[in-house]
Amino acid sequence: MTLDAVLDQVDGDLESAVARLLELLRIPSISTDPAYKEDCDAAADWLVDDLQSIGFDVSKRPTPGHPMVVAHAEGEGPHVMFYGHYDVQPVDPLSLWSNPPFEPRLEDTDNGPVIRGRGSSDDKGQLMTFVEACRAWKVVHGTLPAKISLFFEGEEESGSPSLVPFMQENADELKADIALICDTGLFGDSTPAIVTRLRGLLGEELTITGPSKDLHSGMYGGIARNPIRVLAKIIASLHDASGRIMVPDFYDGVEELPADIAQQWNDLGFDNSEFLGEVGLGVPAGEDGRTGLEMIWSRPTCEVNGISGGYQGDGFKTVLPSQASAKISFRLVPGQDPLKLRESFRAFVQAQLPEDCTVEFKGHGAGSASEMSTDHPAFEQARAALSDEWPNPATFVGCGGSIPIAGHFKDILGMDAMLIGFGKDDDQIHSPNEKYDLSSFHKGIRSWVRVLDAMSK
Amino acid sequence: MTLDAVLDQVDGDLESAVARLLELLRIPSISTDPAYKEDCDAAADWLVDDLQSIGFDVSKRPTPGHPMVVAHAEGEGPHVMFYGHYDVQPVDPLSLWSNPPFEPRLEDTDNGPVIRGRGSSDDKGQLMTFVEACRAWKVVHGTLPAKISLFFEGEEESGSPSLVPFMQENADELKADIALICDTGLFGDSTPAIVTRLRGLLGEELTITGPSKDLHSGMYGGIARNPIRVLAKIIASLHDASGRIMVPDFYDGVEELPADIAQQWNDLGFDNSEFLGEVGLGVPAGEDGRTGLEMIWSRPTCEVNGISGGYQGDGFKTVLPSQASAKISFRLVPGQDPLKLRESFRAFVQAQLPEDCTVEFKGHGAGSASEMSTDHPAFEQARAALSDEWPNPATFVGCGGSIPIAGHFKDILGMDAMLIGFGKDDDQIHSPNEKYDLSSFHKGIRSWVRVLDAMSK
Repeated sequence: MTLDAVLDQVDGDLESAVARLLELLRIPSISTDPAYKEDCDAAADWLVDDLQSIGFDVSKRPTPGHPMVVAHAEGEGPHVMFYGHYDVQPVDPLSLWSNPPFEPRLEDTDNGPVIRGRGSSDDKGQLMTFVEACRAWKVVHGTLPAKISLFFEGEEESGSPSLVPFMQENADELKADIALICDTGLFGDSTPAIVTRLRGLLGEELTITGPSKDLHSGMYGGIARNPIRVLAKIIASLHDASGRIMVPDFYDGVEELPADIAQQWNDLGFDNSEFLGEVGLGVPAGEDGRTGLEMIWSRPTCEVNGISGGYQGDGFKTVLPSQASAKISFRLVPGQDPLKLRESFRAFVQAQLPEDCTVEFKGHGAGSASEMSTDHPAFEQARAALSDEWPNPATFVGCGGSIPIAGHFKDILGMDAMLIGFGKDDDQIHSPNEKYDLSSFHKGIRSWVRVLDAMSK
Repeated sequence: MTLDAVLDQVDGDLESAVARLLELLRIPSISTDPAYKEDCDAAADWLVDDLQSIGFDVSKRPTPGHPMVVAHAEGEGPHVMFYGHYDVQPVDPLSLWSNPPFEPRLEDTDNGPVIRGRGSSDDKGQLMTFVEACRAWKVVHGTLPAKISLFFEGEEESGSPSLVPFMQENADELKADIALICDTGLFGDSTPAIVTRLRGLLGEELTITGPSKDLHSGMYGGIARNPIRVLAKIIASLHDASGRIMVPDFYDGVEELPADIAQQWNDLGFDNSEFLGEVGLGVPAGEDGRTGLEMIWSRPTCEVNGISGGYQGDGFKTVLPSQASAKISFRLVPGQDPLKLRESFRAFVQAQLPEDCTVEFKGHGAGSASEMSTDHPAFEQARAALSDEWPNPATFVGCGGSIPIAGHFKDILGMDAMLIGFGKDDDQIHSPNEKYDLSSFHKGIRSWVRVLDAMSK
């Protein structure tokens, strides 16, 4: 039977598929750091070559930033658009990696074999699950089960500055019946999940300047304004004792979770202590009176991602620094307007600034949250197909991360997006020692074969 | 007349004196950074050679850290011990230097010629004023006006870890009738000042650990503890709205300034706006109801000298960091016990730590404040001598900086210490573009000639 033949092909070709992924992982395509611009380009070229070898009509498309890769292949059935990103996060602190981040390898662990390296899970490994599914189908049938388009960007980890303009300029080409996105995870270890709710992201960088130059804390300590203290006070004022965010109007438009969704989530039996215990924590740090899943899936957040000021080297320097800066990001939920909140945050900071300090803001990504409508038949077809591959039935979940592309497919192209991914909570994405379970990769490929098969019926 | 002959010798030899200072300034003797250990040693060697050329019996003395330089010369009159330090502060941010910090040069400025380079004022330039005074006297008279000992350390900018043990082990050799220290400044531009009150210093470094590794703020944001936020909250809690420091028992033993001293200080006509205006500030940031001179001379402080955590590179990284750290220093006044306050500060931090965070402390220098007794005749002799050299009469002042050596001379060797220096507020010590006015250097040498002459009578 045709499905089994393709699944067998996937199983038999797994070793080569891993080898191909390791090739892609060796390219240090860190999009946020200009030093790696050529590597991002090289990763795009690698994808172009690989997709050509499968028979896609593929092109590398320039943008003001890193290039897009767009590919098309004819086929029977619906027109499916698949999205992934080939760029990766920075790797610091390098010293915490057990193996160089861009010398990926297949490693045996107590939990089975894993593919270790930056991007193995987020998102190179995940996007290759779909590419390998197409390759296997093509090998067995000489054709694909649907008209398939692929759309890979190289700026997802740096706010996707070129994404919206590119989608607008190429709307006709990129429009399809439905979008598939592989940048999310399983629920737990073996429950396939289809994400129907995503948080948005707003990034802000602020630099506070006090004295016009660094000062000696002996000569000026006590009388001169210290920008580190000013910054710390502002950061401390962002949350109240209950964990509520104090930026004015921050919760405007934020609605309580619908009862049925809340029920589904409670049925998942999410264990706060277990989830936090894996990363050395024990106490949920979010708003009082919220469940763990609400804190990460349906409630907005404000976090400090980086802070810097004064002397940070070895030893001690009794300096009163001229400047102090912080990178702050907000996870947003449906109903919140990123640009309105950016203004609101900046006004909140300005209002607390001592009269002889100045602040400079630098805006980073601003993406709205999104909620999928599950009316499109593909959602139920995929749920059934995934349930066939995995030990547990598939479920609709939320995702704390920000994948603005899902909202863009809806807003710009009028397409529903279905987010299916095979990452695990312990993949350490955005951290040292990122990995992707070989089983995630293998069953991920098989899952897409099944989903494509189901959608083509 | 003998004094004039020596002053003429100083004037005539100024060019060579500057050349000698530039040689010493070219040695990057940054004591706090292990990378410069050999340079500190080289600076000590340079001093040994120079003092030998004057006729001092000099030796470089090893310590667990950087070496001490001790020199002696016989002479009529009292036994005078002179202290200075040949180590310098780090130079970052390098980009803000108009000229490389260790390629010193004589520069013409609107305020007259200056010697520009790291250490030009703090403290190589200042210590050389005394060395040059001795050299001139020796040239003219073939002898010195007093029995003179010199004591130079190379760890003053890194907490002087070897100083106390060395002074204890060599107490007999280092004891003299009085100690002279040249590591302070003029009051304003032309008023010679003898410091009779010095603040102490307590340095603490703390690192707060939350999650066991860096986390993705999408997956964990909202539920996971963020150590940067914990650190910011603690820093914000160090002062209340009135600028008072909230560490328990912090003000134990702190006394109000004696009325006569307060009066002397008020008579100096210190202008807060002018003092702060020079560094781009306008509003005194210390405790409410205190004068500017109290804030920098007689009130204790708590300042953050450095803070670090999370992603600090270009662009943006949505990470929840595992750790955040800060370097915090306290300027202390007479009556405060540094070690007791260290414990009190650590308990204050511990008490605010969420249950799933840990903190690691690293103690840096801990030196008490000191108050000189001005009973020793040298104080009045010096005040008169300095008044002869400068346009304004000399005055007794306080100093916001920490020069623990003054207290050690009293505690360990039972000697009074007299602090006389020629630095200016705009010397930018501990900052980029440090300089020492040529007039400070020239009149500083002449001042020591006069002081030695007065003391020898």
